[in-house]
Amino acid sequence: MPDRNPHRYPDAERSAVYRVIAERRDMRHFRPDPVAPEVLERLLWAAHHAPSVGFMQPWRFIRIADRTLRERMHALVETERRATARALGEREDDFMRLKVEGLLDAGEVLVVALADGREGHVFGRRTLPEMDLASTACAIQNMWLAARAEGIGLGWVSIFEPAELAALLAMPAGARPVAILCIGHVDEFYPKPMLELHDWARRQPLESVVFRDRWGGCGEE
Amino acid sequence: MPDRNPHRYPDAERSAVYRVIAERRDMRHFRPDPVAPEVLERLLWAAHHAPSVGFMQPWRFIRIADRTLRERMHALVETERRATARALGEREDDFMRLKVEGLLDAGEVLVVALADGREGHVFGRRTLPEMDLASTACAIQNMWLAARAEGIGLGWVSIFEPAELAALLAMPAGARPVAILCIGHVDEFYPKPMLELHDWARRQPLESVVFRDRWGGCGEE
Repeated sequence: MPDRNPHRYPDAERSAVYRVIAERRDMRHFRPDPVAPEVLERLLWAAHHAPSVGFMQPWRFIRIADRTLRERMHALVETERRATARALGEREDDFMRLKVEGLLDAGEVLVVALADGREGHVFGRRTLPEMDLASTACAIQNMWLAARAEGIGLGWVSIFEPAELAALLAMPAGARPVAILCIGHVDEFYPKPMLELHDWARRQPLESVVFRDRWGGCGEE
Repeated sequence: MPDRNPHRYPDAERSAVYRVIAERRDMRHFRPDPVAPEVLERLLWAAHHAPSVGFMQPWRFIRIADRTLRERMHALVETERRATARALGEREDDFMRLKVEGLLDAGEVLVVALADGREGHVFGRRTLPEMDLASTACAIQNMWLAARAEGIGLGWVSIFEPAELAALLAMPAGARPVAILCIGHVDEFYPKPMLELHDWARRQPLESVVFRDRWGGCGEE
């Protein structure tokens, strides 16, 4: 049967969307070459065109241009990396062998934070206040996909103490950093998620995450 | 200067990625025609290929096939819609005029939830436990973009009491619903975000959400 949906993209464009979803990777290995300013601008545009709950646009992006600041952030991440390793118990050694950030290598580093004053936004958040973070994650995912299409790697680092990073960047009370993004050129994109290549975890079968009508209910017809 | 980045997508594919980011909409108006099963399967595939913190894949998708269940969910949303309106004070009437969900109309309804047992995942979450939600939001954003390319609308509804929805779907302790997704054919995609068309809010200038080296620091060079 022919597809009569007039809103459907032509096959080549639809394939590009699935390609970028399949090939996007959480990158930790970067080359130091600079990211072209117009590319960074397009990535920020992509982020800012994400959906947000009640159109609140809670995201803020801090570009780290100062090298000393970047080194201080790296020290924060290193402290938390060791604390995480200890908390992992029997997986401590495996974890310490992984490269979990590229802060000193990547061409660009951005901090993404939730803005202060979010309590004034009630639409879609009265019972689920965390939807501000959900919106901001959608913005980062947009940026991630755009970066992959640009041939630029992006890694989301969440290994830091948010209060300390907030203080370092003079964030006001109520703002909360949720990501350090390393963005830059790469020699190659990992063929699979890095944590899969290193046997940290495997992708679950799709059927195991899809239910029908109730928790654990068999999914597909 | 010629672009020598071998990882960059050809222009047509790169444009398709930006096109879908620009044209994706949070939809509330649907036609009742069914969504083809192979399309729904591709959307779920897209979601499941999102990044996740420590590769934990915290997302679960419950397809609502039972009509009575859908009606009960609609009642939950309606209750919270009125509670939200009251909480909005002077914007109550404006809010009540908006269509905020398409639960009874859309061809498909999915509930997205965070799985139970997430406390066992420490990687990237020791100081930022909410990264499980961030990963799940990335999954929904993947699905949203794929849906747009398929010519299918998607709306994320977060107007419900999570404990009640969890009970309705027999979720175990520790699981948390974060989205009701309405997915279906549409007559047209809104040319701009619906909340902008209805003067609820405007998109902020990009410069106002980008800083440099510190909160509020001037962004662009």
